[in-house]
Amino acid sequence: MIETDILIIGAGPTGLFTVFEAGLLKLRCHLIDALPQPGGQCSEIYPKKPIYDIPAYPEILAGDLTDKLLEQGKQFQPGFTLGERAETIEKQEDGSFIVTTNKGTKHKAPVVAIAGGLGSFEPRKPQIENLAKFEDKGVEYMIKEPEIYRDKDVVIAGGGDSALDWSIFLTDIAKSVTLIHRRNEFRGALDSVEKVQELKNLGKINLITPAEVKGILGNDHLSGVVVEQKDKEPFILDADHFIPLFGLAPKLGPIGNWGLEIEKNAIKVDNSLDYQTNIPGIYAIGDVNTYPGKLKLILCGFHEATLMCQSAYKRIFPDKKYVMKYTTVGGVEGFDGTKKEAPKAVVKAIE
Amino acid sequence: MIETDILIIGAGPTGLFTVFEAGLLKLRCHLIDALPQPGGQCSEIYPKKPIYDIPAYPEILAGDLTDKLLEQGKQFQPGFTLGERAETIEKQEDGSFIVTTNKGTKHKAPVVAIAGGLGSFEPRKPQIENLAKFEDKGVEYMIKEPEIYRDKDVVIAGGGDSALDWSIFLTDIAKSVTLIHRRNEFRGALDSVEKVQELKNLGKINLITPAEVKGILGNDHLSGVVVEQKDKEPFILDADHFIPLFGLAPKLGPIGNWGLEIEKNAIKVDNSLDYQTNIPGIYAIGDVNTYPGKLKLILCGFHEATLMCQSAYKRIFPDKKYVMKYTTVGGVEGFDGTKKEAPKAVVKAIE
Repeated sequence: MIETDILIIGAGPTGLFTVFEAGLLKLRCHLIDALPQPGGQCSEIYPKKPIYDIPAYPEILAGDLTDKLLEQGKQFQPGFTLGERAETIEKQEDGSFIVTTNKGTKHKAPVVAIAGGLGSFEPRKPQIENLAKFEDKGVEYMIKEPEIYRDKDVVIAGGGDSALDWSIFLTDIAKSVTLIHRRNEFRGALDSVEKVQELKNLGKINLITPAEVKGILGNDHLSGVVVEQKDKEPFILDADHFIPLFGLAPKLGPIGNWGLEIEKNAIKVDNSLDYQTNIPGIYAIGDVNTYPGKLKLILCGFHEATLMCQSAYKRIFPDKKYVMKYTTVGGVEGFDGTKKEAPKAVVKAIE
Repeated sequence: MIETDILIIGAGPTGLFTVFEAGLLKLRCHLIDALPQPGGQCSEIYPKKPIYDIPAYPEILAGDLTDKLLEQGKQFQPGFTLGERAETIEKQEDGSFIVTTNKGTKHKAPVVAIAGGLGSFEPRKPQIENLAKFEDKGVEYMIKEPEIYRDKDVVIAGGGDSALDWSIFLTDIAKSVTLIHRRNEFRGALDSVEKVQELKNLGKINLITPAEVKGILGNDHLSGVVVEQKDKEPFILDADHFIPLFGLAPKLGPIGNWGLEIEKNAIKVDNSLDYQTNIPGIYAIGDVNTYPGKLKLILCGFHEATLMCQSAYKRIFPDKKYVMKYTTVGGVEGFDGTKKEAPKAVVKAIE
């Protein structure tokens, strides 16, 4: 059982900044995310896209935003349960909550902050018989550990940035990389399209277009895929792994069944106070919540996280009085023993 | 008469970020500030101090924060009335407001956003007879245009960073720089104290301690100051300028008389909606406002400014429907003809 002060569902920008704000109040955080790495959409969907409306960043790449937030919270040593989806929540007699993931990992905390963005990102799956049977047995919808593809025959399907970028990446690791797409045209960054062309010319990527994977073969583990290419007879391709990369779609998912008040696929919160939901001790911050005038902007999530932490503190320590100190004045004391603070003024005679 | 869409009182971080958010909605802004430069406290009081709680900045100097915010809003061409204090407000029949400064500059706008921080920073003035008579005639409490001191005899009083830093700065401009402090010890950054020591040794700063300026002389313009130094007879020092730098203290000031609901020296706003005050069309954002759970943090001002701009848009264009576009998707179009946007994806065949 993982225990913490604030259990954060969702490791996107709002969840990551919560770690920092909670840390200033000496509260520890643990984050659960269905994606294999922190950053939410920013890391998974558009890491190389510039964002222009993060305050005081005229421009920042979404991936760099994630890195900066991780760096800012690092000294507060957050815990992570990644690649697992928060599935169920149970309220304990002592008022705390136990959240269990789809893989059975259990987490306990007096406060739960749902920073789930648009929901957990679920892969779009192709319509192929027996596909589900081979999940984690050769069929993967996201690449979590590239090393499992070392010296393997890998088939990637898709025509966007993910399919292009992972095909490029895996040529250095896999025994063979086959990229299958139902059109001849790919849609993505010019660099990536050109790199795939180059690798294809070098014989490092086996390109099959226009074509689709229509079947999969294997016993305990995937051993091949059935490919239908235009104007050809269907054929079998040996494969240890089949990775359909057809995009991710957010789904509110299991959180929708936690007894929280939902409106337009978002969780209703009290914005006049502290962004708490209808269940005391559960807050919702960032894109996942809704209230009058709500804007789904990262900068709003930062504010909501900050106010939520103050409320969480009062909930966890009802008898303690917290006096806010500005970081410019008091500095930042990490849980790892580090201390950042402004250079002190000297008092010194001039003679 | 200066006309704009949103008239912002206060050019600190919240006011500056408002320019950007308003610009995304194609609304123009003009800012009034009593200080001679934008940035508010960040520029005037602690430009070299690190701030640790700006989201995604593990550390940023307050002066750099100001620069980044100015850069982010630049393409929306904000107007500035600096070194003047917003004094009076009058509601017009058409629902707009006219705000007049202490120097008589008039501004007209349908929406006023008060982003006044802790208030307008007023200098602490020494108790010297006739001091007020020589204001702007040789007595200045802030340095607005260093060039007016070129080839002049300047006397600075004070023992903190401002007194030290301006003494250093003016040695390159003024004919003579005299620094007077009531103690031998100065309180400031070690660098600054050491630099003043060095300039004193070189004869470039005339240091008189422990001493105080007790009187001033002159007819139409200041011509000298009376100095009382310990264990000496009072003496007269020729001076074209006397600059007492004893710090600034924030005062809500004239805004307090605008008919706004005030609580604990801050303006009450409706945080459940759009941070509007009790007067429709006037909003208060950032440290100047108060509501249940309010935190006087820069990041909260950013959020408040953003929600306020949406409400201002509806007020200015009651019949237009605004559909928010993410900057990652739609880019940022400046009023100066510039356009920033993410590199577009290509659709390209691989052969």
